[in-house]
Amino acid sequence: MTFNDLIDRRRTNSSKWDKMEKLYGVSAQDGLAMWTADSDYATAPCVIEAVRDAADHGAFGYSWEHPQYLAAVQWWMQNRHDWAIDTDWVLTSQGLGNAIALCLDVWTQPGDGVVIFTPVYHEFAYKINTAGRRVVECPLTRRGDSYGIDLEDAQSRLDGSEKLLMWCSPQNPSGRVWSPEELQAVAAFAERNGLIVVSDEIHQDLVYPGHTFVPMDKAAPEARAWTVTLAAASKTFNIAGQRTGNMIIPDPKLRAEMRHRLRTLDYAPSALGVAMVTAAYSPEGAAWADAQVAHLDANRKLFDAAIAEIPGLWSMPLQATYLAWVDYSGTGMDHDEFVRRLREDARIATSSGPGFGAGGETFERFNLATQRSRVEEACARLKRAFGDLQ
Amino acid sequence: MTFNDLIDRRRTNSSKWDKMEKLYGVSAQDGLAMWTADSDYATAPCVIEAVRDAADHGAFGYSWEHPQYLAAVQWWMQNRHDWAIDTDWVLTSQGLGNAIALCLDVWTQPGDGVVIFTPVYHEFAYKINTAGRRVVECPLTRRGDSYGIDLEDAQSRLDGSEKLLMWCSPQNPSGRVWSPEELQAVAAFAERNGLIVVSDEIHQDLVYPGHTFVPMDKAAPEARAWTVTLAAASKTFNIAGQRTGNMIIPDPKLRAEMRHRLRTLDYAPSALGVAMVTAAYSPEGAAWADAQVAHLDANRKLFDAAIAEIPGLWSMPLQATYLAWVDYSGTGMDHDEFVRRLREDARIATSSGPGFGAGGETFERFNLATQRSRVEEACARLKRAFGDLQ
Ligand SMILES: Cc1ncc(COP(=O)(O)O)c(C=O)c1O
Ligand SMILES: Cc1ncc(COP(=O)(O)O)c(C=O)c1O
Repeated sequence: MTFNDLIDRRRTNSSKWDKMEKLYGVSAQDGLAMWTADSDYATAPCVIEAVRDAADHGAFGYSWEHPQYLAAVQWWMQNRHDWAIDTDWVLTSQGLGNAIALCLDVWTQPGDGVVIFTPVYHEFAYKINTAGRRVVECPLTRRGDSYGIDLEDAQSRLDGSEKLLMWCSPQNPSGRVWSPEELQAVAAFAERNGLIVVSDEIHQDLVYPGHTFVPMDKAAPEARAWTVTLAAASKTFNIAGQRTGNMIIPDPKLRAEMRHRLRTLDYAPSALGVAMVTAAYSPEGAAWADAQVAHLDANRKLFDAAIAEIPGLWSMPLQATYLAWVDYSGTGMDHDEFVRRLREDARIATSSGPGFGAGGETFERFNLATQRSRVEEACARLKRAFGDLQ
Repeated sequence: MTFNDLIDRRRTNSSKWDKMEKLYGVSAQDGLAMWTADSDYATAPCVIEAVRDAADHGAFGYSWEHPQYLAAVQWWMQNRHDWAIDTDWVLTSQGLGNAIALCLDVWTQPGDGVVIFTPVYHEFAYKINTAGRRVVECPLTRRGDSYGIDLEDAQSRLDGSEKLLMWCSPQNPSGRVWSPEELQAVAAFAERNGLIVVSDEIHQDLVYPGHTFVPMDKAAPEARAWTVTLAAASKTFNIAGQRTGNMIIPDPKLRAEMRHRLRTLDYAPSALGVAMVTAAYSPEGAAWADAQVAHLDANRKLFDAAIAEIPGLWSMPLQATYLAWVDYSGTGMDHDEFVRRLREDARIATSSGPGFGAGGETFERFNLATQRSRVEEACARLKRAFGDLQ
């Protein structure tokens, strides 16, 4: 089983495929699902093996975050990210969407401001709003062929009522890998403003050659007392459906607060989720993850080349993530027209830029974690759908 | 694979087996784990098949409570419990421990009173206390060879500050199956006192011949506006580790409140949990569940007969559940001495009665969801450990 073997995910209760028609009007019959951030290929053999072992055992009773699980998380952070963590810093959540929500629940009150740098993962703002907190939106600045941060500008947008900064690293949707200096500056900005930093590092393993991901806690260990790191195997290993993620919290007070909340909600990870992550965070998993990055690197080169051939379209060079961020402002089309052609002519479902906040107005996000042939097909369709552009 | 094939659950991250030594001082080497309420045998073949299918598919991306899942829940309630529900009443939680916690979170405030009838599932009081709510304990009365409710007595214990009644049906730890009249009386009691009833029906499928479980909502449909039912396949199918349960909420206002809370926490069930429950709630699953009840019925007869032979011990006749509730008051031993013999001499880990609240002082709870040979071994050990009693 390689990254290029076709799997039919239709009618497997894949939300990406089976909800596409309803949400986008793009039929799964001949449509391409390039929206939700999961992958179309199978996970690593060692993870599948863990599921088979559980099936062979047959009893699916109560489990917990057992020592092997915690050791695997620690091993992964040390070996893949040169980041030394204590196993007792690790609290397990129901995936990182749930972890984001829990951080808001524990460390903010209704009405509190939560700082985000946009465009960013749309669920940040959605969760802040749903929980009755206030989005304090600071725009990323364009720097070279990617984004940068302007902390002076950000400072001017705060009024002192902010409690938390939700940070995305590497960044979704731009694929930006932040430098240690940038991370230190963000940590210092948070300190100046009394903000807890929630550093969502879910895309940490999907980094392209030439770039090095550095965890916030490693770049700015001086910020430990106000930093919470979110990390998961879900994107890397295509196991988001198991909804298992980690909150890595060095600070004892913050950790006790989150632990208490998990206890009052009686949250505990699923036995299979724990087994799958334990299997994933291993040397075999690491080798598979490396091969996946090579696959994705080829995918995005192919995709970017096709986009470059369509006048008016531009794909931001990815430093990380399998999520291509495509600017169509050069076409002069408005959002409705661009999206109409995408959906009706190219029959591709993508995530719309405006959902990612200010700065996303003229963008669409394309998920490239699929078979090469599907990327090729998407390129061909885009060329056809936008072939009239000059 | 039958209920009597031995499975070695040691070193499988089974909390029942692998935490036994630490918590009870009973070594898994030769100890018998009869505490936590999960089963020692494999789940139904159709559920294992669903796990194997997922492994064969290999992609574990985002899923949701899809229509087949909801239809399976509906089918089960209709066909197994003669209870007609709408699929849109069903909200999915991270198992029923989490559901209980969520009900407290949504419908009570810190300091509010929560009514329970004890002895009852120890986590009720634990969760109420952990969340900073107040346990209002109403003792069950002994009626015949089981328990009954005395609502006049209960009324005298309320002071009007109570918000919620946590009800267990069938009852853990006594195995009582409540009659429709009793359920109606409880619903009316709740109405008089302005209480939301959370009816935890997790043991609904484990009912012995001669008894019929009736859901609260079916017995007292007039109480729909203040009743929330919790139900799950986790005990019935030994899939508690997948942490998937349902909150069945006919009332639109209560449902909207819970739905909002699930959304703010970004809770969604795991793909495998949903797949396993969908497979379980089927005709094949039902046939397996029937066979399991026959197995458990034989287990408990064997166990009760052995207990009856030990002077001073008495096992409450179970109407439901695989949890035997054993009174040792007739031995004249105090808790420490009885438990010392259980742990050190018989090397059996059980759940201690006092944890279940008032009325549980002289009891221990024995989990009989295991192989016949293990029940026989437990009986033999108990006879040896308490053989000196007259
Ligand atoms: C930055 C970021 N955080 C969190 C998530 C969601 O994580 P999970 O699937 O663990 O809930 C995503 C998914 O796209 C993401 O991109
Ligand atoms: C009455 C009752 N409710 C809830 C639970 C826990 O359910 P879950 O495993 O779905 O969290 C148990 C487990 O023993 C129980 O007996």
